[in-house]
Amino acid sequence: MAISKTKIYEPLTTSRAINLLKELDFFKKDSILTCNEIGDGNLNLVFQVTEPQSGKSCIIKQALPYAKVVGESWPLTLNRAKIEADALKLYKEHVPQFVPEIYYTNDDLAITVMEDLSSLKITRKGLIAGEEYPHLPEHLGEFLAKTLFYTSDFYLEPPAKKILAQKFSNPELCKISEDLVFTDPFFNSDTNDFEPELYDDVQTLWNDFTLKLEAAKLKKCFLTESEALIHGDLHTGSIFTDQYTTKVIDPEFAFFGPIGFDIGQFFANLIFQLLSNPKDKERLISGYIVDAWNTFEKTYSDLWRKESREKYTEVEGYLDFVLKKIFQDAIGFAGCELIRRTIGLAHVEDLDGIFDNDLRINAKKASLQLGRAFIKTRGHHIGPESILPLLSETAAYAAINKE
Amino acid sequence: MAISKTKIYEPLTTSRAINLLKELDFFKKDSILTCNEIGDGNLNLVFQVTEPQSGKSCIIKQALPYAKVVGESWPLTLNRAKIEADALKLYKEHVPQFVPEIYYTNDDLAITVMEDLSSLKITRKGLIAGEEYPHLPEHLGEFLAKTLFYTSDFYLEPPAKKILAQKFSNPELCKISEDLVFTDPFFNSDTNDFEPELYDDVQTLWNDFTLKLEAAKLKKCFLTESEALIHGDLHTGSIFTDQYTTKVIDPEFAFFGPIGFDIGQFFANLIFQLLSNPKDKERLISGYIVDAWNTFEKTYSDLWRKESREKYTEVEGYLDFVLKKIFQDAIGFAGCELIRRTIGLAHVEDLDGIFDNDLRINAKKASLQLGRAFIKTRGHHIGPESILPLLSETAAYAAINKE
Repeated sequence: MAISKTKIYEPLTTSRAINLLKELDFFKKDSILTCNEIGDGNLNLVFQVTEPQSGKSCIIKQALPYAKVVGESWPLTLNRAKIEADALKLYKEHVPQFVPEIYYTNDDLAITVMEDLSSLKITRKGLIAGEEYPHLPEHLGEFLAKTLFYTSDFYLEPPAKKILAQKFSNPELCKISEDLVFTDPFFNSDTNDFEPELYDDVQTLWNDFTLKLEAAKLKKCFLTESEALIHGDLHTGSIFTDQYTTKVIDPEFAFFGPIGFDIGQFFANLIFQLLSNPKDKERLISGYIVDAWNTFEKTYSDLWRKESREKYTEVEGYLDFVLKKIFQDAIGFAGCELIRRTIGLAHVEDLDGIFDNDLRINAKKASLQLGRAFIKTRGHHIGPESILPLLSETAAYAAINKE
Repeated sequence: MAISKTKIYEPLTTSRAINLLKELDFFKKDSILTCNEIGDGNLNLVFQVTEPQSGKSCIIKQALPYAKVVGESWPLTLNRAKIEADALKLYKEHVPQFVPEIYYTNDDLAITVMEDLSSLKITRKGLIAGEEYPHLPEHLGEFLAKTLFYTSDFYLEPPAKKILAQKFSNPELCKISEDLVFTDPFFNSDTNDFEPELYDDVQTLWNDFTLKLEAAKLKKCFLTESEALIHGDLHTGSIFTDQYTTKVIDPEFAFFGPIGFDIGQFFANLIFQLLSNPKDKERLISGYIVDAWNTFEKTYSDLWRKESREKYTEVEGYLDFVLKKIFQDAIGFAGCELIRRTIGLAHVEDLDGIFDNDLRINAKKASLQLGRAFIKTRGHHIGPESILPLLSETAAYAAINKE
């Protein structure tokens, strides 16, 4: 039976992965291929298949019907493979330079065959290794502006947008974010995970009802505001990069949500680098954030002026209102991301990988402090310059405040 | 061929309507029945079928595949019949006392067979005739609180709500509101319709950019905020009533949108009564609005405290925040409704039926003035008491300011 035509889901093996690519004529039947499973195995299988003779290669990503987290498994819709493939195809229409090529998709098998990006590095790992990516901010700024403008009611006819929103309805993966980003870290939940040294800070956070009220508003925004197709998981582990190239991957959490979410997640995941290396990286990371926002703002404003189909975009002040809302939402969502990656279920290597115990704890305390400040003060910020003092304070705190 | 099993749409005739009810065993095969088409014929056929001998009767509503407006026809999805029937069934779970019984639905024929409410009056007509409905405000307050709480993320599990929201995705009918409520009346659009005497006021409105910026924000809210299943067309023509009973009908515009929209449309359509008869009705209508909001607020707050499944509803201040947002949105949406029913495509009999030309023009000028004030000042209001002075001013203006 031809693998590419089957309608019955079965996880691939390396040999089935090879057969699939030969069936698809991606490689010749008599090619000699190598195949390695390179995924982290929690949610997806990822096979890298290479023809050593020609150097030609590709990636097969297959969703698993469950998620493995903290040793347990729970069922998880295979439909996320379709969402991911559909989002990548849609991105390709607007920002082909920032996404991998998609060669083949099969919704029944939950499979996407795509460009092998292994010549690039995962941005998180590159940053941790001390690399700098001068083009990353402007690339992401452009990616965000274009994907978030072209899928909004400002560009699409509203009925077309609503039909697209149905296609990207993603209840199960949204639920993961609703719980793990917006709820669990703010309450004493079983999923939380943090060092005993953080206990007092976490208690303070859980008892900060001003914070919780603001977190409630941000969760409501995430639950109800269908502004544009957002990536939904745009941390630095979802971005491949080198000095010249930026590729966004893994939009399996994509759905129609608030524009600020993607921007906030990206900002927060850059900030983990500032926290992990406060003396050396404050200027670099602050610069990345300013550059990314400025590119976003400029690109989005140009699109608004030139390509909007919404009559009200002519009205003086409306663009400023929309940009201000996006920025304030982004800062709030960045605050949630800082907190949840510090004390919630899913951590980041930037912080957990800090070898020195005191420095790591300090960095995490600083992360919680900045997260709380972002969430509570987001209404006062209208652009990246006004958050720079907060970043400086946080860097200073992370650097020197040894216990 | 049995009508009730057909899958091919065809508009009913009176004889086919009778046959359908006999096939469904709603009436015996040998019953002598009368059947009248009582719809206004713009969007739907409405047959009232009666067995004079027993007095038993029912209504068959069938969607037409087009809308007739200003002499023209445009195609319109039959799916709205399914949306309407599904909304009425869902309302029945939560507020059976406020909706008609549904006896039968057929999505292919776009048909709903339901309780005959002709012992009641359409609220708009009753109010115009000078009737008073002391229970109407508390009934509507309860209807709104329950339907809008039980279909929100505060009660439903968010994934269940998202699946329900897909079922109620209603792009074509939303587009009608997006254009006719939120856009066309604020610009010089072909669909607008107003007396020459209003020309200066309308020019002033079109040149009021502060107003247009606020209207833009309200339209964005309508386009993007999926808070709960709203009725979407809750004017006083969608409510049957008498001294004791209130029944909400016609939710064919239903979709997941901002909670304040239903409340605002209801308020505005009460206010048309105040405008049409300012000397006699100011106190009555102001009282209705205060009572409706107070019942809504109390019922919604009780549900929030007792039946919420969202952890954040415990957080002090969150309920107040949500109620304040609902009220302010409602006032803004009421403002849009006041304006669009005065100068847009679809008017209301309350205003157009004012016989005296000067009084009618005055009432319409007052409507525009109040609409603009509502939209621009909504952020300052936190409850119905604070809008009462505006209602008084408006009543005074409508009553005495003859040209």
